[in-house]
Amino acid sequence: MKNDETSVRPRFNKVVLIGVGLIGGSFALSLKKANAVTHVVGLDRHLASLEAAKQLNFIDSFTEDIASAVQDADLIVIATPVAQTEKILSAIYPYLGANTLVTDVGSTKADVVRAARNALHEKIAQFVPAHPIAGREKNGPEAAIDDLYVGKKVVITRLAENSDQAVELVAQAWRACGAIIHHLSSEEHDQVFASVSHLPHLLAYALVDDIAAKPHADRLFQYAASGFRDFTRIAGSSPEMWRDISLANRDAILEELDSYSAKLKQLRASLEANDSAGLEAIYSRAQTARLNWITAIEAAEAQNRDGGD
Amino acid sequence: MKNDETSVRPRFNKVVLIGVGLIGGSFALSLKKANAVTHVVGLDRHLASLEAAKQLNFIDSFTEDIASAVQDADLIVIATPVAQTEKILSAIYPYLGANTLVTDVGSTKADVVRAARNALHEKIAQFVPAHPIAGREKNGPEAAIDDLYVGKKVVITRLAENSDQAVELVAQAWRACGAIIHHLSSEEHDQVFASVSHLPHLLAYALVDDIAAKPHADRLFQYAASGFRDFTRIAGSSPEMWRDISLANRDAILEELDSYSAKLKQLRASLEANDSAGLEAIYSRAQTARLNWITAIEAAEAQNRDGGD
Repeated sequence: MKNDETSVRPRFNKVVLIGVGLIGGSFALSLKKANAVTHVVGLDRHLASLEAAKQLNFIDSFTEDIASAVQDADLIVIATPVAQTEKILSAIYPYLGANTLVTDVGSTKADVVRAARNALHEKIAQFVPAHPIAGREKNGPEAAIDDLYVGKKVVITRLAENSDQAVELVAQAWRACGAIIHHLSSEEHDQVFASVSHLPHLLAYALVDDIAAKPHADRLFQYAASGFRDFTRIAGSSPEMWRDISLANRDAILEELDSYSAKLKQLRASLEANDSAGLEAIYSRAQTARLNWITAIEAAEAQNRDGGD
Repeated sequence: MKNDETSVRPRFNKVVLIGVGLIGGSFALSLKKANAVTHVVGLDRHLASLEAAKQLNFIDSFTEDIASAVQDADLIVIATPVAQTEKILSAIYPYLGANTLVTDVGSTKADVVRAARNALHEKIAQFVPAHPIAGREKNGPEAAIDDLYVGKKVVITRLAENSDQAVELVAQAWRACGAIIHHLSSEEHDQVFASVSHLPHLLAYALVDDIAAKPHADRLFQYAASGFRDFTRIAGSSPEMWRDISLANRDAILEELDSYSAKLKQLRASLEANDSAGLEAIYSRAQTARLNWITAIEAAEAQNRDGGD
């Protein structure tokens, strides 16, 4: 590996995982696989999830007592739907020692930063916001895997208050999971992901719900094939998580949705007018843009495999 | 195998393949693998494609002379973009012998049937319309594979004029490729596929084109991940083919697009009003419907593997 940063192996004595689902569980499994953590304490709303997480060995213990959990922790990771962030940070705040870092995995960042400022007050420098760009169709502790983040991007949206050291420690934790660190401001982040992630989720949910509501839905689903399966894969994602993301990044998503609706309207007009050239122009531009994108990400992945930076 | 029909092995002396791309090429490769054909003759607008198809051994010879190609053929398969169907059938018509069957692979059927009636006149009974529900992200002869149709549905939309024997021979050809035969009317077919295939293609093309047109498209694509990749996979499909399908099935697609746009409008209103419960209801219904669908197709696939009918 030519990238010096990646050769620094962090070692955390105690990591607190709040939310033991797919994303948090996969983070804990990956840290354990990298031998980067001694003890993971789990907290979750659901006792059954904690018991499953313990059974799956990605947490070593669990508790309902936030005071004892937080004490002496090196790193607290909030891996819950984003709407819970402020409540959780407020509960942590009184017990948060000066040597403990807090991070999150939320798919929106501006609202998470607002929540953190509201909750953490003078301890705000200890919170480093982050977003791993990875997921699976399945949710819950049983879906957690130890290689979910290998080769995947993690976007850190650092605060002005964060020390370089704090940011670097969170980056090291993710690099130990195999991830590649990127930096954006929280506003840049939210605008980018409204476009390439949040809007597509809405569109996929809307299509499946539209079809499911039709009287002949059974026949329709009978003939749905692999194209439909891929197009709607993200509609298998957690409704609660995506409700929260939608609301947290509402304004940016509305803007993207309006832009997309205008494009659909244009496409509809071409179709209605039998505008063969107009339709083919849209389809061709899209095909070319997607091909260029796939080529670029494949080149980037090849470079990562070769240890380039 | 419990299904007696699947045990009948057809044997075609001469198959004429008009259009040597992914779909036609995979059909020819599959027939050859099943030892169901002696000689495949290719016709195509592009000489380079014919040369590639010959090189890839899924055609044995090629010609520009439609009269000699059609003579003594057992089966002629039209595997071109659907808008070319009428012109091709008209060219075939004068040379079409009484013992030759013609079929197609078009993703729309009502327009293909219209084209066939216009072109084949009193020979219409020899045309058996069909649509294999299979595809890949790649196009062209090089994309052809010999197992594209294994376990996939082929919908036959038989004409009133077709004999049982003619329909059965086309069905046998597809079964030799590993496919499972379904029957729909051409109107039912077009309405079903407008919903679960044609509309999703339009939506995926529209999203990629919308993003590609933004001034910061490069940054957006940089952070697009696996969810985006799957959602937009069908936007990698052939623009010409999908232009033709869109126009051929225009009315049904416009109807589905309007239904979808109404659902998007509802979703937009819920989001704008911060209607948390309304959003979650849409997402939950979609997630459940998709899960039920996946469960049902997995059960059907398991049954097919076990040889059940």
